[in-house]
Amino acid sequence: MKAARMHEYGKALVLEDIAVPDIAPDEILVKIEACGMCRSDVQLIDGYFRAYADIPTPIILGHEIAGVIHRMGDLVPRNAGLSEGDHVVVAPGWGDGICRHCQVGNTHICPNVRWPGFGPVGGFAEFIPVPSRYIIKVDPRLKFEDLAPLTDAGLTTYRGMKKLRDAGALGPDRVIAVFGIGGLGGYAVQYAKLLGGGARVVAVARNEDKLAIARDYGVDHTIAVEGKSPADVARELDGLTGQNHFDAIVDCVGAPEFIQLGMSLLGTSGHYVDVGLVGDRIDVPLFPRVSREQTFHGSFWGNNDDLMEVMALAAQGKVRHTIQSVKFDDLNPALEQLRAGKIIGRAVMTF
Amino acid sequence: MKAARMHEYGKALVLEDIAVPDIAPDEILVKIEACGMCRSDVQLIDGYFRAYADIPTPIILGHEIAGVIHRMGDLVPRNAGLSEGDHVVVAPGWGDGICRHCQVGNTHICPNVRWPGFGPVGGFAEFIPVPSRYIIKVDPRLKFEDLAPLTDAGLTTYRGMKKLRDAGALGPDRVIAVFGIGGLGGYAVQYAKLLGGGARVVAVARNEDKLAIARDYGVDHTIAVEGKSPADVARELDGLTGQNHFDAIVDCVGAPEFIQLGMSLLGTSGHYVDVGLVGDRIDVPLFPRVSREQTFHGSFWGNNDDLMEVMALAAQGKVRHTIQSVKFDDLNPALEQLRAGKIIGRAVMTF
Amino acid sequence: MKAARMHEYGKALVLEDIAVPDIAPDEILVKIEACGMCRSDVQLIDGYFRAYADIPTPIILGHEIAGVIHRMGDLVPRNAGLSEGDHVVVAPGWGDGICRHCQVGNTHICPNVRWPGFGPVGGFAEFIPVPSRYIIKVDPRLKFEDLAPLTDAGLTTYRGMKKLRDAGALGPDRVIAVFGIGGLGGYAVQYAKLLGGGARVVAVARNEDKLAIARDYGVDHTIAVEGKSPADVARELDGLTGQNHFDAIVDCVGAPEFIQLGMSLLGTSGHYVDVGLVGDRIDVPLFPRVSREQTFHGSFWGNNDDLMEVMALAAQGKVRHTIQSVKFDDLNPALEQLRAGKIIGRAVMTF
Amino acid sequence: MKAARMHEYGKALVLEDIAVPDIAPDEILVKIEACGMCRSDVQLIDGYFRAYADIPTPIILGHEIAGVIHRMGDLVPRNAGLSEGDHVVVAPGWGDGICRHCQVGNTHICPNVRWPGFGPVGGFAEFIPVPSRYIIKVDPRLKFEDLAPLTDAGLTTYRGMKKLRDAGALGPDRVIAVFGIGGLGGYAVQYAKLLGGGARVVAVARNEDKLAIARDYGVDHTIAVEGKSPADVARELDGLTGQNHFDAIVDCVGAPEFIQLGMSLLGTSGHYVDVGLVGDRIDVPLFPRVSREQTFHGSFWGNNDDLMEVMALAAQGKVRHTIQSVKFDDLNPALEQLRAGKIIGRAVMTF
Repeated sequence: MKAARMHEYGKALVLEDIAVPDIAPDEILVKIEACGMCRSDVQLIDGYFRAYADIPTPIILGHEIAGVIHRMGDLVPRNAGLSEGDHVVVAPGWGDGICRHCQVGNTHICPNVRWPGFGPVGGFAEFIPVPSRYIIKVDPRLKFEDLAPLTDAGLTTYRGMKKLRDAGALGPDRVIAVFGIGGLGGYAVQYAKLLGGGARVVAVARNEDKLAIARDYGVDHTIAVEGKSPADVARELDGLTGQNHFDAIVDCVGAPEFIQLGMSLLGTSGHYVDVGLVGDRIDVPLFPRVSREQTFHGSFWGNNDDLMEVMALAAQGKVRHTIQSVKFDDLNPALEQLRAGKIIGRAVMTF
Repeated sequence: MKAARMHEYGKALVLEDIAVPDIAPDEILVKIEACGMCRSDVQLIDGYFRAYADIPTPIILGHEIAGVIHRMGDLVPRNAGLSEGDHVVVAPGWGDGICRHCQVGNTHICPNVRWPGFGPVGGFAEFIPVPSRYIIKVDPRLKFEDLAPLTDAGLTTYRGMKKLRDAGALGPDRVIAVFGIGGLGGYAVQYAKLLGGGARVVAVARNEDKLAIARDYGVDHTIAVEGKSPADVARELDGLTGQNHFDAIVDCVGAPEFIQLGMSLLGTSGHYVDVGLVGDRIDVPLFPRVSREQTFHGSFWGNNDDLMEVMALAAQGKVRHTIQSVKFDDLNPALEQLRAGKIIGRAVMTF
Repeated sequence: MKAARMHEYGKALVLEDIAVPDIAPDEILVKIEACGMCRSDVQLIDGYFRAYADIPTPIILGHEIAGVIHRMGDLVPRNAGLSEGDHVVVAPGWGDGICRHCQVGNTHICPNVRWPGFGPVGGFAEFIPVPSRYIIKVDPRLKFEDLAPLTDAGLTTYRGMKKLRDAGALGPDRVIAVFGIGGLGGYAVQYAKLLGGGARVVAVARNEDKLAIARDYGVDHTIAVEGKSPADVARELDGLTGQNHFDAIVDCVGAPEFIQLGMSLLGTSGHYVDVGLVGDRIDVPLFPRVSREQTFHGSFWGNNDDLMEVMALAAQGKVRHTIQSVKFDDLNPALEQLRAGKIIGRAVMTF
Repeated sequence: MKAARMHEYGKALVLEDIAVPDIAPDEILVKIEACGMCRSDVQLIDGYFRAYADIPTPIILGHEIAGVIHRMGDLVPRNAGLSEGDHVVVAPGWGDGICRHCQVGNTHICPNVRWPGFGPVGGFAEFIPVPSRYIIKVDPRLKFEDLAPLTDAGLTTYRGMKKLRDAGALGPDRVIAVFGIGGLGGYAVQYAKLLGGGARVVAVARNEDKLAIARDYGVDHTIAVEGKSPADVARELDGLTGQNHFDAIVDCVGAPEFIQLGMSLLGTSGHYVDVGLVGDRIDVPLFPRVSREQTFHGSFWGNNDDLMEVMALAAQGKVRHTIQSVKFDDLNPALEQLRAGKIIGRAVMTF
């Protein structure tokens, strides 16, 4: 099968022909129809994660996977209701099934977790073997290109927003921000409206070019922050909403200066969820966090339950997409564009 | 001032002229512009509550109060930001301020609570004295007739819906029901859409005549249950939604047969919130509650925080109303209509 | 192997020799060392559950199972860390693994759940095949007789108490009750002290004979209710604690008159958890539930995560037991004693 | 009356005679019997808070206040149940009563909050006027010296621990740490046992000298970290508990190096509560926070409800104290000792 593999950190992917992988008796072989391209693919190549896990090469990248069931292992449970030909997405975060996190469904934070796209199997290929419990059947009327990004960009932001909702941070008298309107932020602003219970939503980005998507998706206000001091932004926010602080923030960037800006604009008992990983440093004053009783939540990808909810939204037509199609053969140039921040919405590879 | 008082249980209100009430130094005299009419007004007259609290007569009924600040006591805190002429609503549930419930803002369930409309002061009159902390200033562009019902019909249902949300009972893969589309249910269906996070909403009523409002307010499906067995309703529900049970129910009726129907249709880990008080009996099997891990929540009116959120929704134009205007002089006939279940939406008295 | 099977509803178990069951590749054959005897065993024989599920005979009863791993299927995951000879308990509630409840670990309320002891395999036998993910390895220093009841009596009450804690119903200014001091209540009072955060705990039972255990386990007060009116009990409670109502109740009985008594004694914003199934009817007034904003939680058995927590408590020596040993050959007379309410603590069968 | 006032930042307090303050009609004049000495008193003198609020001098310091009701304003509500001679503590955090935070009882984070001890009235004096709703009556058998620190040291840690409990971070299979065993940590370790539901508790301090108190209060393990690398500490922790990370941390220090150490030792889905303010910087890597889904909570002092719970614990004799008595005339030398970290437990001023 065709596969795009990383043989060396820092180098372009090698597009090559390799054997179709075997499946274990409880696995399913998925024929991949679409695979989203994520900023973390670039980061994996660039070595961002090596300080935390030095994954051996060759690696097949690509972790936002939608496709069709091609073959099923003999021990896939009959009650899973799966058949060859079913349209499916692949839930990320394959846990060991026995740790405390797996026991409550959070397989994606299992200490022994495996991730498609971060090892020998991944989505930039024609086939992938997947443990059956991480296969989620989807409405066949949905497009593969739209489904793929919902397994990370559209899942990670959903989980982050749920953390805000479950923390009591949303509601009609609140102003919430989405930081960064790239592949993730476009989904985050939609979830802010869907889960916000009437909260007013402000999209915040470095400059104007990406804010148009947010407006199109229904945010109440937008702020481009480039060249503005925190005080400038607070004033602009006050002019737009009548309050100079945010009650909650979903940060889809994670750059140090965005975290600093966000924290300085976060109100009393405010909640900050970070899902972005552009930088790798939180460096902020302590006292305001304490005296204003603020909470910072790290939120990572999502679990099967989250993904099933996202699929329920998709099936109802409640999620919109901004997709840039990429052919398998153009993966390397597309990764360059991603590295340069030039993708609007989400790039998705198809064959 | 004009006032409609109940001098005897079971008798019509007496429309009479009485002295404008005095105010204590920390109270505010509100000139009433509109007062909603509630089924519990009828029940108060009919003695429903006497088993629980035998309120001495004369009683000025009416507890959904919107008006204008007429005069302020000398000790009303300056920081309350209130002035004569401000448009306001009256938060119900005046607590003692020191019990455990008051300490966290739930003054409406204080053991020493006082209610406007259930004692010597109420809303079917031209003026009412109100402790300043129960006055909430509102956007002057909103209509008094619309504001009044938001202090009970539109508040009680909001609190009930929040209990479902905070219990994790809502979300895009859930089907939730609103039972009863009268004065309360019309708001409940709107909140189900606002707080449901993508849940599909089914309006359930005895017959078709009131379901049109629910459809107009955006419910996904409606079911008229008169003459149908629980099995019939389950089948109809399955046809509409693909599942034969509800994941959550907001019961705005509270009649024994609705509770029985609702419980029989409630799914595993389902949540049932009752805000309706048409009946006074829960009589259901125990085992399914336990084996399906269901939760029943009594929810009562709302607190200041809830009301501020409802006002924030109203200010954003996110709540719609179905109001039937009633003149002060027509209060008694309107109460008859209410008793007979003939009001569509909410009746609101003005002068 | 020896097995005690029910061949006909309403009849004594038949003690017989049957074939040792086979195991599927992902199952484990457990050699049973101890199996607790539960009031629901009697109810199963007596047909209590037939209205809800008419399980075909023959049935091997017994669902509180502790034992030793005898043989493992070929596909039991290596990372499960299990070996022949390990001491284990059997988690109840074997789910289909794919429903919404299973996805978050609540396999015990899966719509397709299977229960050991309620079908062809159960604990009143020498061996039982168990899907590997429902095997929990335990500290080998713990006694099998103590471990067995922790999989239902000591698990069900733990989950119920956690529901109270997670609902915010516990704390140092609260008075909580445990209703019924039989097999379940003895554990419930201990958990009330462990999770109560300083709450005062009152054990309530029909008569004095079983309350001694509760006192021994550290409850603050006891009340025997036989022959007393609700007002009598309220007065007695007030004398003991300074308040005439409970802030939370764990009902290990579930008889209609206990539910009525409990509800009448439940305070404002009180929480009532029922885990007991002696009766099958809730029949109480509606208005006080609503006006006092009370919550009723059905709680059923427990999931793997709950059981792992209970095992962690056991390993720390934080749970005490009152066990009455029963030999396999004496199962039928012991069931008679259980039916008559004559067991103090928990009866546990061993070979 | 005697009062110790700060007339200039960075200088010793001036012990002087000033007029007894007046009270407003809804205030109560408290005769102070004991006032705890807090590290934040030193920080106030040293200017730590000036970056956030430049409080004008003269300031009467002292915010942990216990005493006796001396005189009551005419408008103190009768239902408050207060009389001259009652033993009371002063709840900190006097809010405006109308903001969103005050509406749910969190007056201590009101944007217009006033604090005793951080302005013209405080606890290092013979009398203080207090708004009546911030007076909490206490059991007269309790000692004033013990009560005083419960209004900050023993309250702040209680609220922090409750945040962990309410976040689901505690339980019998968890290992939780208390960082710093000074005035606050001594209470935190007790609450860890009271609220932990069987969690194992590890006290962590720079060196051995303060850990003895923690052992005396029942912690399971202690670790002195001076001169040890994070890897050393992880190894030591593993030896003590069988796991090399904490599931939750209450940081009573707040120094940058403790935050870095704590974060590096925090496990997956771990929760970190900071109540300590020794430093003013959080500077940690971002990726592990996100990929391990960790949560950081700032927690500040406490509200009336928290304080009532602490008082309920005190009344039951469930809180122990390590108090070092200080005479009013010795306040300045005692502040020096506090600055030097030489106080064991809590210093409390009496007259």
